Amino acid sequence: MNAKRLGTQTVRFTSPPSIVGSGNVVGKKEGEGPLKDSFDAIDTDTLFGQKTWEKAESEMQRRALTVALDKAGVSTSEVQYLFGGDLLNQCIATSYNIKNSGIPFFGLYGACSTMAESLALAAMAIDGGYASRTAAITSSHFSTAERQYRAPLSYGSQRTPSAQWTATAAGAVILSAAGKGPYVKAHTTGCVVDMEIKDANNMGAAMAPAAYDTLSAFFADTGLKPSDLDLVLTGDLGRVGASVLTELFKMDDVDLEPYYNDCGLLLFDSADQDVHAGGSGCGCSAAVFTGHILNSMRAGKLNRVLFAATGALHSPTALQQGGTIPGICHAVLLENFKEERYALDLC
Amino acid sequence: MNAKRLGTQTVRFTSPPSIVGSGNVVGKKEGEGPLKDSFDAIDTDTLFGQKTWEKAESEMQRRALTVALDKAGVSTSEVQYLFGGDLLNQCIATSYNIKNSGIPFFGLYGACSTMAESLALAAMAIDGGYASRTAAITSSHFSTAERQYRAPLSYGSQRTPSAQWTATAAGAVILSAAGKGPYVKAHTTGCVVDMEIKDANNMGAAMAPAAYDTLSAFFADTGLKPSDLDLVLTGDLGRVGASVLTELFKMDDVDLEPYYNDCGLLLFDSADQDVHAGGSGCGCSAAVFTGHILNSMRAGKLNRVLFAATGALHSPTALQQGGTIPGICHAVLLENFKEERYALDLC
Repeated sequence: MNAKRLGTQTVRFTSPPSIVGSGNVVGKKEGEGPLKDSFDAIDTDTLFGQKTWEKAESEMQRRALTVALDKAGVSTSEVQYLFGGDLLNQCIATSYNIKNSGIPFFGLYGACSTMAESLALAAMAIDGGYASRTAAITSSHFSTAERQYRAPLSYGSQRTPSAQWTATAAGAVILSAAGKGPYVKAHTTGCVVDMEIKDANNMGAAMAPAAYDTLSAFFADTGLKPSDLDLVLTGDLGRVGASVLTELFKMDDVDLEPYYNDCGLLLFDSADQDVHAGGSGCGCSAAVFTGHILNSMRAGKLNRVLFAATGALHSPTALQQGGTIPGICHAVLLENFKEERYALDLC
Repeated sequence: MNAKRLGTQTVRFTSPPSIVGSGNVVGKKEGEGPLKDSFDAIDTDTLFGQKTWEKAESEMQRRALTVALDKAGVSTSEVQYLFGGDLLNQCIATSYNIKNSGIPFFGLYGACSTMAESLALAAMAIDGGYASRTAAITSSHFSTAERQYRAPLSYGSQRTPSAQWTATAAGAVILSAAGKGPYVKAHTTGCVVDMEIKDANNMGAAMAPAAYDTLSAFFADTGLKPSDLDLVLTGDLGRVGASVLTELFKMDDVDLEPYYNDCGLLLFDSADQDVHAGGSGCGCSAAVFTGHILNSMRAGKLNRVLFAATGALHSPTALQQGGTIPGICHAVLLENFKEERYALDLC
């Protein structure tokens, strides 16, 4: 029954689904950053033509899905499952985006790990024989997230050096049983790891142990080393979290750094854009992955990428009650080659 | 690739996973209701020994999972995936329950449809060849839900006749590739349906159109009729929603009523327990399903049940912004017989 399992947390896909379309839409600040040329659309209106920021996030997500479907040449009625979620309470950006679309929907909550969580389940649904075409989607909006998780923007609260900037961005991916790649080859499911960080302005430190846990499981389960990959890309650890992660691997005598980067470090220019420790939010990894990374894969600059989106599963209520910030990391292995030209099945 | 698909929204499991363990824990009021003998544990302390209601919900869920694992004779380390979520912002009842458990975790948000959504994905993970043992879990707590969705309890707000009572309850299910049943045979994935209900005290009316949509898809996809089933069980439509649902089917000349019931109508005694339109919450369908329904299946009183949990995907923020209440319904077909003795594969 477990021919697809590798070790304790990893499965490989024996009929790897192909990414046949992707789309992203970002806000003004993201569109001024180093990756500006990799986005499908940049809207300088923080409300995206809507009356509230929450509705704006939903609209941004709707546009990202439309772009992805168009690029894939797939109509809404051909999407057999959509897996998605977001950071808003009750995941309303996603539910309101796809209401009355007629797309069968699995709602997820993985905080900022959602792009990888949704991609993994969308791939499992195809490889498992349940669907030919699926979609994965997520989003975040600086203005909805800040007031929900921290303080109303109008307070003008000062930000700590370890704070990250929630990206205003949405990303969508269309997977198909048939396609020219990149292919989703394997997935390592994250466990919830809590190292008892309590500072809501230091998400990187809270999530880094979960990233270490999942990446360690991936390497153990597959027998691969960091040097076997072109890139290990975490979601939104930012400067603090990325440094904690590479330090944790150093303690295992593993040098991750030459093969490692983080979406939160890629999205903004840390010197010029005043984002402190870097970008964060579901949309951060979604926009970097669906833009810069997939473009680089399609161009052959990257052939084997481990995309490991990270999420902090806390809530303001839990923190007010003295709770800690548990983290999770879901990792997805993407390759340009459908066949197993690497040693993944020999482990 | 789609040998497992039936129609637009339904898949059948070719190696149907078996329910090998289930557990539930409920609060005082639920333990005084007509199903009191079907619960594994009743705790009369609304705080379940914790300092806050949110922590209480997490503790209740932890106990339900422990009971389910014990009954299944399965250890935590043998659970290859846990699918779960709850109603709390950022799904903290579930994340905090399973943190540091080492169980690979997919976080879901399906509001009160979560027991069926998690069961469906847990079954897909096994039937798809990714795991031998999986778990599905959810919960709700009257006191956490009321203050989050409506008003602080201490306000003593008057309840409308259409209002439902959020159950203080948690349920967990352990699935295995091997077992003696009941078996998860098929699943109809819900779409988000919004009929523009705006009254947060009338969840039944908001969710009934989604239940109608999913059940209609199930009947169309499988070719089955209500009379082919021993029971069609919705999650928590309550008195108002159940009546809307049966009326909608009457307009299609389908008489659902003889085969139909709703967890929200079963959990409480509507005459004596002052719950107005009935029970609701993720824990309502979870506790009724893991108790009364599975007991009846194991005893052979029910052999073929369509469990269709329903969720309202709204948020207080969305309603304050003039938003509507979209609904979703996920349906899972359970049978006591592993083989396809019915006509499911002939459609």
